[in-house]
Amino acid sequence: MRALAAASRPLFSDLPSLVRSWLPPHSFKTFASVSSSPPSDLDLRNQSRGGLPRFFSDDLPSRKGGVVRVQGSEFWHMAKVLRLKQEDRVELFNGKGGLVEGCIQSIDKTGVDFIAQEDPKVILPQGMQWQMFAAFGTLKGGRADWLIEKCTELGASSVTPLLTERSSIISENRVDRLERVSFAAAKQCQRLHQMVLNPPIKFDTLLDHISKSKLCLVATAEATPLLNAVNVRIESMIKSFNIICDFTKKEVEMMLEAGGTAVGLGPHRLRVETATIALLVTLVMWSDSQETV
Amino acid sequence: MRALAAASRPLFSDLPSLVRSWLPPHSFKTFASVSSSPPSDLDLRNQSRGGLPRFFSDDLPSRKGGVVRVQGSEFWHMAKVLRLKQEDRVELFNGKGGLVEGCIQSIDKTGVDFIAQEDPKVILPQGMQWQMFAAFGTLKGGRADWLIEKCTELGASSVTPLLTERSSIISENRVDRLERVSFAAAKQCQRLHQMVLNPPIKFDTLLDHISKSKLCLVATAEATPLLNAVNVRIESMIKSFNIICDFTKKEVEMMLEAGGTAVGLGPHRLRVETATIALLVTLVMWSDSQETV
Repeated sequence: MRALAAASRPLFSDLPSLVRSWLPPHSFKTFASVSSSPPSDLDLRNQSRGGLPRFFSDDLPSRKGGVVRVQGSEFWHMAKVLRLKQEDRVELFNGKGGLVEGCIQSIDKTGVDFIAQEDPKVILPQGMQWQMFAAFGTLKGGRADWLIEKCTELGASSVTPLLTERSSIISENRVDRLERVSFAAAKQCQRLHQMVLNPPIKFDTLLDHISKSKLCLVATAEATPLLNAVNVRIESMIKSFNIICDFTKKEVEMMLEAGGTAVGLGPHRLRVETATIALLVTLVMWSDSQETV
Repeated sequence: MRALAAASRPLFSDLPSLVRSWLPPHSFKTFASVSSSPPSDLDLRNQSRGGLPRFFSDDLPSRKGGVVRVQGSEFWHMAKVLRLKQEDRVELFNGKGGLVEGCIQSIDKTGVDFIAQEDPKVILPQGMQWQMFAAFGTLKGGRADWLIEKCTELGASSVTPLLTERSSIISENRVDRLERVSFAAAKQCQRLHQMVLNPPIKFDTLLDHISKSKLCLVATAEATPLLNAVNVRIESMIKSFNIICDFTKKEVEMMLEAGGTAVGLGPHRLRVETATIALLVTLVMWSDSQETV
């Protein structure tokens, strides 16, 4: 079973000591945990803005001067879409934090040979980390795929399916499919770290996690608007823990008793997958606005 | 050709006079326009929170005591999902602002007869109105459907497809399909007003609209984070006008010259449909947080 918590690094401008501190991810167990990444000489906050064109490769050269071959869709994108040529500079990433600069050494009909012009770097997760929890096991019509794709694209660090009264199962097949969706999305959006799709958890386990966690946002109707809630709770907000609707009233009460913070998502009735994404988007944009204050 | 602007009502807490004022929608032409809805004795801000269970019906009773029959999926939801019985109180809405309270007069195997217990109301659009513009004519894999469904669900007042250098066409078939998607979503999320899907416009027309509009948010990389931009521009922000990525650099420059405001959407590279929804979600949540200050 994979860890329920990914490494977290808060980037509040008023908490510089936390921003700079470093605690290794394995020193924590569940998602009550907090960890941060070390200072870096790279500006990696904007993981996909500007810079060299970046492509996914499972394998990276182990050191400067090493060569790997890039084929398939990434090759297509390099050669046909961007029309890159021999000696053009590009970056390769492996979705596990590995990143290396280099150039196209040679190009033929089926792929390119990439040569590393520096040693590969291993980048630790940057910025605030969002752990998403949603009961999406029974969503139909590609809605679960969509939820996973968008969580990946928007930078969630993990998604955990919840087994609740209304959504009590998730099939193995579906989990496999969602893994593939997430992987494809991570490649497409050039995430340096793949999103973790956790095994499903039951409601009792969730309550236990909430009670151990610093801040859990529970999306419910008629609650304080999300942005007001996070602005008020900024000092104590170390990590985010999102729990989405489609709960029964009793389940919501139990989550709030366990220490969850109720937040409202505006005037509209949102589907589970929309509410999940609305929460995540807003937190990502809020975090983005905090970092430049 | 449908109007490009839906009625707009800003709900800034610091602009109470605007909130209360009323200008009929037809007094304006393009989406440089602003209009507001009249005061109402109903709390309609939360269009789908609390209150009676609400169901869609094309036809509403014309007055108190009138009866209409509800069948199909709405009947299914009433009778099978919520297990409503004879004499249970419900509301019917028609997606054009019409809303009426009443109860189930009788119920049989194929539908229910609904009897109005009051005269129907016609509700004008509430809250801030968001006009979305995005180049989604060439999106594949259901992404355009998804964009339209989520814009509808999140309360956008209109969506206009843009014809740009990179996305120069949108087929008639696709427009028909998107109309159906929007209609289904409006029913599902119980919007009192259906979203308007405008005819596609070309880039030149867009520039013209931008130059006439009070505030146009243009999503671009490396720009001021969205929430910082809207917090600064709150006083002049009467309506929103969203233009999404997948533009060439030259197109972005032209939009900014025409008066667009560049806004950033965080550190990740987002697909067109994700960027559109990210902008809309954030503005909806921001608006929600302003209304309760």
